[in-house]
Amino acid sequence: MAETIADIGEFGLIDRIHQLVKKRGVELPPSSLGIGDDTAFFSPRPGFELLLTCDCLVEGRHFLPEFISPFNLGRRAMSVNLSDIGAMGGLPLYALVSLGLKADMLVADVEAMYNGFLEELNPFKASIIGGNITKVKDATFIDITLIGQVKKGKIVLRSTAKPGDSILVTGFPGQAAAGLRLLQQSGVNAESKKDPLVRAFITPSHRAWEGSRVGNSGLATAMIDISDGLLGDLGHICQASGIGAELDQNKLPLSEDLKRFADEFELNPYELVLKESDDYELIITCKPEKEAELCSIITSTGKVPVSKIGKIVNKPGEIILKLVDGSQQRLTPSGWNHFTQ
Amino acid sequence: MAETIADIGEFGLIDRIHQLVKKRGVELPPSSLGIGDDTAFFSPRPGFELLLTCDCLVEGRHFLPEFISPFNLGRRAMSVNLSDIGAMGGLPLYALVSLGLKADMLVADVEAMYNGFLEELNPFKASIIGGNITKVKDATFIDITLIGQVKKGKIVLRSTAKPGDSILVTGFPGQAAAGLRLLQQSGVNAESKKDPLVRAFITPSHRAWEGSRVGNSGLATAMIDISDGLLGDLGHICQASGIGAELDQNKLPLSEDLKRFADEFELNPYELVLKESDDYELIITCKPEKEAELCSIITSTGKVPVSKIGKIVNKPGEIILKLVDGSQQRLTPSGWNHFTQ
Repeated sequence: MAETIADIGEFGLIDRIHQLVKKRGVELPPSSLGIGDDTAFFSPRPGFELLLTCDCLVEGRHFLPEFISPFNLGRRAMSVNLSDIGAMGGLPLYALVSLGLKADMLVADVEAMYNGFLEELNPFKASIIGGNITKVKDATFIDITLIGQVKKGKIVLRSTAKPGDSILVTGFPGQAAAGLRLLQQSGVNAESKKDPLVRAFITPSHRAWEGSRVGNSGLATAMIDISDGLLGDLGHICQASGIGAELDQNKLPLSEDLKRFADEFELNPYELVLKESDDYELIITCKPEKEAELCSIITSTGKVPVSKIGKIVNKPGEIILKLVDGSQQRLTPSGWNHFTQ
Repeated sequence: MAETIADIGEFGLIDRIHQLVKKRGVELPPSSLGIGDDTAFFSPRPGFELLLTCDCLVEGRHFLPEFISPFNLGRRAMSVNLSDIGAMGGLPLYALVSLGLKADMLVADVEAMYNGFLEELNPFKASIIGGNITKVKDATFIDITLIGQVKKGKIVLRSTAKPGDSILVTGFPGQAAAGLRLLQQSGVNAESKKDPLVRAFITPSHRAWEGSRVGNSGLATAMIDISDGLLGDLGHICQASGIGAELDQNKLPLSEDLKRFADEFELNPYELVLKESDDYELIITCKPEKEAELCSIITSTGKVPVSKIGKIVNKPGEIILKLVDGSQQRLTPSGWNHFTQ
């Protein structure tokens, strides 16, 4: 019979995780300590600031086990944190993984989840340095604290956008929400898994490589990652910077896949781009004269296109959408409010 | 009507927490950033190592709301993490607090919990620098990542105890487990709350001040905090250091309160001292000739006594208890296995 956590117990599981991380993860530098004592430790590198973020996925709230494999769940949980580190201009160093697991979970599934974490961390030579495991009855959770670093003076905040700045966005926001809707309708099967929209939901992007290059370039005036939707997070920039934004509808990046989806479901494709979606792209602002150079730095990773979608204006808190027909619409950056919706 | 989280929403709650932390917490140094961007950041201090730990309390597993107020729950959740930082010889710097909360929770109770976090952090001039909030349906959880620092070369590991070393323990392990049993029997009322054993359970100790002094002194050979019981965590030292231990029954620290409790419930008081209990004391090993000096350093905080309870022996994995009558008993450091019990 397949082994469960209850079969090997907490310390047995920790030992298995420890072995897996040692074998498949990158090696820790000698002046540091990973899993196995009261705390982990490391020697911070002089000349760098440390970035700290944590994000948690809860079963039934952020994921449904029937829609996502343990491996992809691990990738996803790490990606949402990588996205935050990238959005400050940094690169990840160390993760602490705190899990709430059910006793009947298969050990192989826990290991698959860790392989997912490492799949995302290894390219950065970042390691899992510690964590915690506790038993839960109802809903599994994966709570990751990620520590990153950025050269002193290279951090990019959300609160420093200025009127006149260009607004850039990476990739194609909206695809993940469309993918979720497709999954809810057709379920997970060989065909649905091939759909690019479904793939955008199951294995979401993160733009830590791009964010780090943006930070190093010193060319951006502000940056944020999208996790509350393009409009929601542009709203966070507006609020924190005390400015407003004007978006051009015909410049919003609309993938062919999203167009097809909008046609099929008779939805407004621009709304899909603007509203809540788990795409983890970046919104970046910069002076117009730096736009071309910044765009080429972003696309130099070869992973994602970037689009100029509008400009920052001196109207605190207002987001205006200039429609294709020349009219204007005022948008409300409501974002994704997890307790009232 | 009393305000719930659902009334003010996620961003409303984050704003309230932000205000509370700014007002009641210690001020962040200028080269750092707390709540409000994609990540927090700080400039690490040259000459120090950074310590990282995380520990999570889950409702129904680690606490029952009917036994503990939100304020004391906050203190407890922070104390278990402070204990780990202290057990490496360090002091805390920054906390990230990740919460899973139910929508009908009172905002005032969330604020009381944060006041509990700050009650424990403020004396160290440590701050809450970030976190995450997510909605849960069934069981509230409080997952804290705590970052500490320790001077280079002053970290005390659990894996470096040597045969011949003296074994010291702070305080009176076993009291919290007795307090929990009293609470389960009599419930929370004005009288039970006055009981020192109940207080030991509700507002557990941590020994971060003592641990930090031990680390700075350079006199300890190994250190661990007790969270799996005195025997369980001594077992961790034995396993990690590849040694064994001999304990003297008549030297085990037995408080008057625990004696009274053992009498009343007809229990073996020494078993209570050795077995699982949430006391968060420290086990420290040192060369016998450093014992007196180390004990006076520990007690110089004026907060807790320290007892020599035995010595490290060259019998890997064995823990022997020398009984008062001269006989010997071999103990099994099972600890507290959260998935199989």
